[in-house]
Amino acid sequence: MMRTRPLKVALLGCGVVGSEVARIMTTHADDLAARIGAPIELAGVAVRRPSKVREGIPAELITTDATALVKRGDIDVVVEVIGGIEPARTLITTAFEHGASVVSANKALLAQDGAALHAAADENDKDLYYEAAVAGAIPLIRPLRESLAGDKVNRVLGIVNGTTNFILDKMDSTGAGYQEALDEATALGYAEADPTADVEGFDAAAKAAILAGIAFHTRVRLDDVHREGMTEVTAADFASAKEMGCTIKLLAICERSADGASVTARVHPAMIPLSHPLASVRGAYNAVFVESDAAGQLMFYGPGAGGAPTASAVLGDLVAVCRNRLNGATGPGESAYAALTVSPMGDVVTRYHISLDVADKPGVLAQVATVFAEHGVSIDTVRQQGRQDGDGEASLVVVTHRASDASLSGTVEALRKLDTVRGVASIMRVEGE
Amino acid sequence: MMRTRPLKVALLGCGVVGSEVARIMTTHADDLAARIGAPIELAGVAVRRPSKVREGIPAELITTDATALVKRGDIDVVVEVIGGIEPARTLITTAFEHGASVVSANKALLAQDGAALHAAADENDKDLYYEAAVAGAIPLIRPLRESLAGDKVNRVLGIVNGTTNFILDKMDSTGAGYQEALDEATALGYAEADPTADVEGFDAAAKAAILAGIAFHTRVRLDDVHREGMTEVTAADFASAKEMGCTIKLLAICERSADGASVTARVHPAMIPLSHPLASVRGAYNAVFVESDAAGQLMFYGPGAGGAPTASAVLGDLVAVCRNRLNGATGPGESAYAALTVSPMGDVVTRYHISLDVADKPGVLAQVATVFAEHGVSIDTVRQQGRQDGDGEASLVVVTHRASDASLSGTVEALRKLDTVRGVASIMRVEGE
Repeated sequence: MMRTRPLKVALLGCGVVGSEVARIMTTHADDLAARIGAPIELAGVAVRRPSKVREGIPAELITTDATALVKRGDIDVVVEVIGGIEPARTLITTAFEHGASVVSANKALLAQDGAALHAAADENDKDLYYEAAVAGAIPLIRPLRESLAGDKVNRVLGIVNGTTNFILDKMDSTGAGYQEALDEATALGYAEADPTADVEGFDAAAKAAILAGIAFHTRVRLDDVHREGMTEVTAADFASAKEMGCTIKLLAICERSADGASVTARVHPAMIPLSHPLASVRGAYNAVFVESDAAGQLMFYGPGAGGAPTASAVLGDLVAVCRNRLNGATGPGESAYAALTVSPMGDVVTRYHISLDVADKPGVLAQVATVFAEHGVSIDTVRQQGRQDGDGEASLVVVTHRASDASLSGTVEALRKLDTVRGVASIMRVEGE
Repeated sequence: MMRTRPLKVALLGCGVVGSEVARIMTTHADDLAARIGAPIELAGVAVRRPSKVREGIPAELITTDATALVKRGDIDVVVEVIGGIEPARTLITTAFEHGASVVSANKALLAQDGAALHAAADENDKDLYYEAAVAGAIPLIRPLRESLAGDKVNRVLGIVNGTTNFILDKMDSTGAGYQEALDEATALGYAEADPTADVEGFDAAAKAAILAGIAFHTRVRLDDVHREGMTEVTAADFASAKEMGCTIKLLAICERSADGASVTARVHPAMIPLSHPLASVRGAYNAVFVESDAAGQLMFYGPGAGGAPTASAVLGDLVAVCRNRLNGATGPGESAYAALTVSPMGDVVTRYHISLDVADKPGVLAQVATVFAEHGVSIDTVRQQGRQDGDGEASLVVVTHRASDASLSGTVEALRKLDTVRGVASIMRVEGE
């Protein structure tokens, strides 16, 4: 039975994603109506530049007054695809207060203020959905918070930034250095003119905070996420990774501790074995690997960005929120009941691959091994290589067993103080084993 | 705010999956209560053999009278993990009539009677959820019917049977023949004593019918699914596949036609390029590749069977159905509004790899090529090989461009009538390009 009064949708932002949302709402109106049980109507589009020609959007729907739009009182769902913290945050809160539910693609805002926004949604008995905020079109938020609602997630390991995966894949497949690969990513439109948010891991860290919060039913703030970018990954690191049967990916890793009482979230480049499903994720694709008690290992793969893919996720949420509205119900809200401790990076336990430049003389290995032992870091393998250039230096590559990040940091600090250690060429975590 | 009166759950079946569901309901009771918003209580467990010891399940909950259990009237959710058509079908219908919603893992039943069961659920305003019916723990039904509800799915290409994937992976990696690989699968418990349902594609066909129905919002009956098993795949086929840069998988393929007006569903072994994400799905794992207008290419990967993984999917549904119940709402029901034509196999368009045994003499290639041309099947490549055994025969391997299955069948029929064609050694479709 189809309701005939349409549900009214306000669109905030009409850029790459917003224009796709508007287009699909128009071209697929009949399908959306059938799936929702009522037609939906684009009731207004808030933009910054009203003079820009926007094909398929009637001029009378365009407004520069987003606040007035969300305050109209007859809006059923506000779709926020502006991005950034303000004015998005105030507009979303205002939308709840004026009777609308919200679909957002705003990872930065959700990572920073998710708890407050969920609280505002709850107070007003409205929905806040944001599948598009993490990994674009890949269904991830819904599987984590609904499909796995009867399971216990222990780890989320993901490639959640397409730009950096494109760069690292290029370095891996061509032997290019970081700058060369970045230049190509920029030329092809995969990297922005200022790539900082991507290459320094800010974007991935926001997604890690959101994923960890949902996976562990615990509030994880953006500040809780340890973040390292990938600008210092070198061609030599890829060569080392290959020797280990690994490649290098920028990973977002959310883990429950072995005792189950605490969680950690972090973003950094890491070696993963070539046999791991994440190792073969190419180009700008995203993929997220989820490990849980009962389901075991799951992987979700797809395009992590782009107008149409992100719009697909937004529209899936829009259908769900509209359905909830017709049902007079709301979907699952924030679930933070577990309230586990979010531990600092020092508590993370993993393996490490460390390249040292050392003096090429007897006894160095013994010295180095002693430092590892003193800090409780057990060595798995060591490879020692004299240099061809005869400068009296050698390379020492150490791969450790599992140890805490704090122990490893202590080890490295002590190594740097040894006369025979000329430099720590690289430290890379080894994940996914 | 937690409701204190528990929701009552009746479990039908307590085998590999059912016992895991009961176990997790007990061990994770607090988590489930927090996620649902009310505690859940195992109110009864219907089994065939009541004398069997079932650890952790109080004896007073065990009954052999499943009908009385679902008729009790105080049951909120019936979890059906008996499998098979009867008595499962009658029990589910009876459950709806007596006020319960249903979570089922029963692919055979859903594929055969999904429409009638959905109608029964709707009439009684109850939920029917069945994430566990397809690909075990992999969230697939929910992403297709919710996450992609605002998108247009064009193709679903999946490895949905772990037994056959284990066998084919073994044949690929070791060069073993079908029987040898099957024996190993049986020894390791991946194949049942009677492997017919798996190796003849019946299991995958049921899943294909369910997936096609949801993906295309169209009723697809089990009879509509073209089905070929994989018992005739040979080591020689794998050798041919390797020459093409391919491997062989048993695929469930649900496709929308190019004009969008009809759909097809089929299960058969096929070559897929090694570069395709499905090619690297190893062992008994399942994976489903989904192509849609806006999202592009998505893949969902994980364990497709087993007690704990299937229980994970069942429990995810149980949480959702319980939440709906507390909300006084129901989730998305059957969506068959599109009512597209389901076309027969003859209308399927794909590429083919055909191996012919032919007389080793001049003019044969011209004859063969003429037959293809007469049937409108365009040849991409031909490879002709004289045999070492000097028996006057040669091999001709033809790879076609895209053509309808009907045209290809006509071609093969005509080829068999040629004096110079001694036999058609194999015909294999080529997918995923």
